[in-house]
Amino acid sequence: MNTSINLKQRPVGTPTLDDFSLEELDDNFILKNGEMLLVSKYISVDPYLRGRMSDAKSYVPPFKVGEPISSGIVAKVLESKNENFKVGDFVYGLLQWKEKQVSNGEGLQKIDKSKAPLSAYLGIVGMTGLTAYLGLHEIGKPKQGETMVVSGAAGAVGSVVGQIGKILGLTVIGIAGTDEKIDMLKSDFGFDHGINYKTTKDMKAAIKEAAPNGVDVYFDNVGGPISDAVLFSINQFARIIICGAISVYNKTELPMAVAVQPFLVKNSALMQGFIVSNYADKFPVAIKQLATWLGEDKLIYRETIVEGFENTPQAFLDMMDGKNKGKMIVKV
Amino acid sequence: MNTSINLKQRPVGTPTLDDFSLEELDDNFILKNGEMLLVSKYISVDPYLRGRMSDAKSYVPPFKVGEPISSGIVAKVLESKNENFKVGDFVYGLLQWKEKQVSNGEGLQKIDKSKAPLSAYLGIVGMTGLTAYLGLHEIGKPKQGETMVVSGAAGAVGSVVGQIGKILGLTVIGIAGTDEKIDMLKSDFGFDHGINYKTTKDMKAAIKEAAPNGVDVYFDNVGGPISDAVLFSINQFARIIICGAISVYNKTELPMAVAVQPFLVKNSALMQGFIVSNYADKFPVAIKQLATWLGEDKLIYRETIVEGFENTPQAFLDMMDGKNKGKMIVKV
Repeated sequence: MNTSINLKQRPVGTPTLDDFSLEELDDNFILKNGEMLLVSKYISVDPYLRGRMSDAKSYVPPFKVGEPISSGIVAKVLESKNENFKVGDFVYGLLQWKEKQVSNGEGLQKIDKSKAPLSAYLGIVGMTGLTAYLGLHEIGKPKQGETMVVSGAAGAVGSVVGQIGKILGLTVIGIAGTDEKIDMLKSDFGFDHGINYKTTKDMKAAIKEAAPNGVDVYFDNVGGPISDAVLFSINQFARIIICGAISVYNKTELPMAVAVQPFLVKNSALMQGFIVSNYADKFPVAIKQLATWLGEDKLIYRETIVEGFENTPQAFLDMMDGKNKGKMIVKV
Repeated sequence: MNTSINLKQRPVGTPTLDDFSLEELDDNFILKNGEMLLVSKYISVDPYLRGRMSDAKSYVPPFKVGEPISSGIVAKVLESKNENFKVGDFVYGLLQWKEKQVSNGEGLQKIDKSKAPLSAYLGIVGMTGLTAYLGLHEIGKPKQGETMVVSGAAGAVGSVVGQIGKILGLTVIGIAGTDEKIDMLKSDFGFDHGINYKTTKDMKAAIKEAAPNGVDVYFDNVGGPISDAVLFSINQFARIIICGAISVYNKTELPMAVAVQPFLVKNSALMQGFIVSNYADKFPVAIKQLATWLGEDKLIYRETIVEGFENTPQAFLDMMDGKNKGKMIVKV
């Protein structure tokens, strides 16, 4: 017996459990040459998946209704007729939300359990770390002594961005939605300042106060009113990395915002959308750097691990709702 | 006797003639060593001056109330105690709105009447041409076969941008506000398509129709609803040059717009504010290229020339109102 989690219907606005279905599969796994049987161990749930649940044009094709969702998964090889993978190997790749599945190995990479915990390959030494590192390097181009603001700072990517900022000698200001998260940013991740956007009445003033010299780099995971407020503090030649816009993913109407154009032209500032997969040629260098910092204890990471395959949709919903601290992962 | 045009008060919203004053000056010009006496010949009126009339923080300091406005001016040397300039030379630089003024030559460059008409040094071989050329090259990075949209296309910068686009092998779509301007874009400047935003009900649909392969480069002179509409057609890796936001310069309230962040992240697109003075090291190469194209008749330019020094404020207001075709210039 096998189980999959499918997209039952396209969510309208905020997704609910009704948008997902658990399907019992009567799979009979007979491997062809080159194939292997995988058992899922850890499943990554990420904000970008919300986009794929809609059928709007985007950089990745939408999920199909009635078919399994897919995301980053760490799996173990149970059987193998593929000469590159042997039984007991662990692999990482974009796989379906199934307890077991067959793969020909395409797009999968073997991972080494001795170098980092398996779940870290979904986070700090996986897409999360790569997104933080490459977004900051390739677009943010930070220089020692500059000031950086990170929104969604307590999230998986945000917490890594802030730590890398500190390693590089920046003043780092994190924005998050609970006092507990703000404390964590400062005490655990070494952020210089934290702003709780849910309890702060005047975000514009709070950012100005935290960044008296203005903002040189803004790593934006959220969009919406928080990002509007940051605009008022940007410096000449500021760089704004648009890594996500979680605040609008569930919106059914076209979101309006403060017009960015006057701010960009006044400050010769740059704003660029960042999608990690466009920088695949830089992954090896970036992973090496992340692993080095991890080994030197310069980077720490948080995970919120939810147990049980069937809880994957709830984990996704909770992550969208900001209930995670650091990377949200399902342990199968 | 001499005359200056001063900023009488800071405009609120759309400027009016009341915001300017004409002052008779009882100047007695006695030159010190190194100085020269200049008589203004051509005065440039430009959208960016509106910003300097307010006291908001910007990339250039605000004009002072009660003092002369300044802009790009072509002047003739009447008397000289400066060894680098002799009587009869023509110079270009940032000068005050005065019929006559004394200068020590700092920031002025000699211009050659035989290479281009004097007024062209305020336009196609001056800041206008440089803005078009460098904005497009440095941020737009156009590639043959791509599609470009230009807003404010019948304006000084826009009409040059479109022509350079055609030289470089792009499909060029211009947006302007009268049918006469649209005709001019296509018949005189070689644009492939023109959209009259004042008579087009659904700009989003009109842009999609004119750019069936999507928009790779958007040279934005206007901001506002026109720029909102372009977002829906941008391609992956699109580059948006924010050269101006004339649609909001007169706004007293903070302008709202469609949130750009989701569009930028979905398309890995870039949006960057462009200010020509940041690229001064590239001026010589750019001027040479512009002059070459001009000599080869690959570039043509339009001027709206208003006669009379005292009409400079009205010329500025008319330019802000879109009454010019090409570069708006006052002949003193």
